[in-house]
Amino acid sequence: MVMERFAAYIAEHQARLRAELAEIVRLPSVSAQNRGITETATFVEQRLRRLGAETRLLSADGGNPLVYATIGNGSRTLLIYDHYDVQPAEPLELWHTPPFDLTERDGKLYGRGVADNKGNLMLRIQAVEAWLATEGALPIRIVFVVEGEEEVSSKTLPAVCRTYADLLRADGCLWETGGVDLSERPVVTCGAKGIQYVELVARGASYDLHSSYATFVPNPAWRLTWALNTLKGPDGRIRIPGFYDRVRPPSAADLAALATIPAGDDEALLADFGLTAFLDNVRGTERLRRHLFEPTCTICGLVSGYTGEGSKTVLPSEARAKIDFRLVPDMDPAEVLQQLRRHLDAEGFNDIEIIDLGGEHPARSPLDATIVQAAVASARDVYGCEPILYPTMAGTGPMYPLCTALGTPVASGAGCGYHGSRVHSPNENIRLADYERAMRWMGSLIKHFAS
Amino acid sequence: MVMERFAAYIAEHQARLRAELAEIVRLPSVSAQNRGITETATFVEQRLRRLGAETRLLSADGGNPLVYATIGNGSRTLLIYDHYDVQPAEPLELWHTPPFDLTERDGKLYGRGVADNKGNLMLRIQAVEAWLATEGALPIRIVFVVEGEEEVSSKTLPAVCRTYADLLRADGCLWETGGVDLSERPVVTCGAKGIQYVELVARGASYDLHSSYATFVPNPAWRLTWALNTLKGPDGRIRIPGFYDRVRPPSAADLAALATIPAGDDEALLADFGLTAFLDNVRGTERLRRHLFEPTCTICGLVSGYTGEGSKTVLPSEARAKIDFRLVPDMDPAEVLQQLRRHLDAEGFNDIEIIDLGGEHPARSPLDATIVQAAVASARDVYGCEPILYPTMAGTGPMYPLCTALGTPVASGAGCGYHGSRVHSPNENIRLADYERAMRWMGSLIKHFAS
Repeated sequence: MVMERFAAYIAEHQARLRAELAEIVRLPSVSAQNRGITETATFVEQRLRRLGAETRLLSADGGNPLVYATIGNGSRTLLIYDHYDVQPAEPLELWHTPPFDLTERDGKLYGRGVADNKGNLMLRIQAVEAWLATEGALPIRIVFVVEGEEEVSSKTLPAVCRTYADLLRADGCLWETGGVDLSERPVVTCGAKGIQYVELVARGASYDLHSSYATFVPNPAWRLTWALNTLKGPDGRIRIPGFYDRVRPPSAADLAALATIPAGDDEALLADFGLTAFLDNVRGTERLRRHLFEPTCTICGLVSGYTGEGSKTVLPSEARAKIDFRLVPDMDPAEVLQQLRRHLDAEGFNDIEIIDLGGEHPARSPLDATIVQAAVASARDVYGCEPILYPTMAGTGPMYPLCTALGTPVASGAGCGYHGSRVHSPNENIRLADYERAMRWMGSLIKHFAS
Repeated sequence: MVMERFAAYIAEHQARLRAELAEIVRLPSVSAQNRGITETATFVEQRLRRLGAETRLLSADGGNPLVYATIGNGSRTLLIYDHYDVQPAEPLELWHTPPFDLTERDGKLYGRGVADNKGNLMLRIQAVEAWLATEGALPIRIVFVVEGEEEVSSKTLPAVCRTYADLLRADGCLWETGGVDLSERPVVTCGAKGIQYVELVARGASYDLHSSYATFVPNPAWRLTWALNTLKGPDGRIRIPGFYDRVRPPSAADLAALATIPAGDDEALLADFGLTAFLDNVRGTERLRRHLFEPTCTICGLVSGYTGEGSKTVLPSEARAKIDFRLVPDMDPAEVLQQLRRHLDAEGFNDIEIIDLGGEHPARSPLDATIVQAAVASARDVYGCEPILYPTMAGTGPMYPLCTALGTPVASGAGCGYHGSRVHSPNENIRLADYERAMRWMGSLIKHFAS
């Protein structure tokens, strides 16, 4: 199974491949700040053309262009989902070297986006190059989908998926993320949680009043507090009727996979978070079970009245709470939104406005899907150990519109991330050895997905 | 009872008296910004010396100097409490003329502090001048106490009162505020509510986490929500054990006074506040009864996690609530603080920190006290109608350390405020006619207090 010429090609062209990574990092494609988008989409499209791919730019609703490319032929089609946009580099003063100037130090490459997600994007393209140079024609058809709005919630991706569904059909999808965990074992995930994000707004007088009026003027901060209290109590149970109805229990395969995942060191995690205990004192595999398979209702933000230093006696005119619901299969974000409205009305809070800030469906792939098995088998080949298979991740991504809605199973893998990558933070970095190893992982994945 | 020469003196010296008011307004004595304090204290001290008073500056704990002055002799001593500090002038762009440049327009004088409290301070000093010039020696001893920290919660006044108690003893105290209400009738108040201001802090992880961790990491925003919910429920009843135990019911005299107070137009007030109903649909005199005689527990501010535009999926590391308790006689702020701690502990919230941001005792004077009756009788003389007698105001001031603790009854009156004064707001102003009428009120009050 070892692809010796493939690996030799990578080693031989090391300097050029890295220089190419530096080129794309130099383009400051910060979608939140609308910087460098066109240049980076063009760079990615031209790089894919140089590979021999047919390319086009797709978009919807005026969103940033998505670079679409197909290359190769075969009975199976592999969709590769990556993104060329990155998080803002701020706070700049915490970077040891300029964020858009890829810098090598101690066997690592530092730069904004190098881990999330330009490293994975480039190593996957470069792996195809290495394949073509050493193995000949691709045994599968590969479709690259490289979007430019991942860091701003993939705003227009669902519309692109609806419009261009026929272009996106595939037998499996390789997801953007990937790498090794703390124990240096490679990780494969097969799903993502969904989400429904809302803002609750309680309103009182039309302007902030002197707090002495609290004797007879309604206080929206109290209204919001009471309304929130009906959503979840100190027992942690979400009280919205019907909320748990669609929760699909973990399958036997899910639980078998769970049992093989190293739960990590509870004490080390507690120390890192600065906590003395987790909720309900859960630990180890039980903590992980909740993390992967349970939905949540989280207050992400609260604001009302005076929030500065010291005291100010004010009766607020408005109070706001931002809440995210993380959803597991088979929950539906639109249904959660309806349940929330019905619940607040039933509890006497029809005065509280719900602003819908967006939802995504949960997504899951069967653990025996071809793409999952290819990711696992190729990781085993290249890393010489059993990869860690997560039935899902606890986070959310646009897997549903791109994959699940079209019937495409999905897995992560063939990525260069590691526990110290500082994704979204200053001094984001990857390790050089991981970059080349993940390229070999990608090569092996092509082989396994074809067979 | 008419003091014709007194009134004539005021009319004759109108231009100079107003110029003097302009002089003190020009000094930007913003205590919150530590501007112009020494200059203004010096101005006040020199003005009182020119009157013939003996003066000294008092202070404690490094606070802004309090100008202390005594003048006159008589069997009764009248304490006059005013302050020379003012609120910040910001937002400057909303002023039609420069805030520290006293400007006459349409029979009004505009300037920061002209209503709160430099107008009252100057007209009271000028009334004493007019008395001395027209009536001869004062029939009472007057003690002026002009502090420089009223707009920053009279931070060091309690310590000054403890240290210099012997200098502050009096038979009655004239409080800083005063003027006419919407119906143009003069107002006299005989007390103030107390307050206990706290900040509640709930803490979770030592830094904000990705919200997916909500499956097993405690969320301080939920902890705070649940804790707040135990303080007060949708029925408005404060649930802290013992909170109502010391509440003194309104006396027969209080209720008789309440019955004579015009409650105001409920519909107009609702429209101004942008509300469709008051709490529990209270209206009229019942609304006023609550306002004057009931304690409150008010969320003045809430903050946690992400509060900007749109959505950010964060699990907050901290949540804070600012709360004021307005207290009626005979509640004790320190006791409320203890009750709150005991209550939170008993409800399982000993993880929530309480920061004490200061307390003041409620204060009340008997409605038949000499100072109250002098304020009422002099208002009747000068305004030709029955003044409105409030047993207390719904707000809070340092009446307790300055008066109640020393056994001094207190009343407001002899002030130049009106419903359009815009106290603490841009374009603060007084009406010229009110300024001179309030000076006559002050002259008449001296006469009535002496007799």
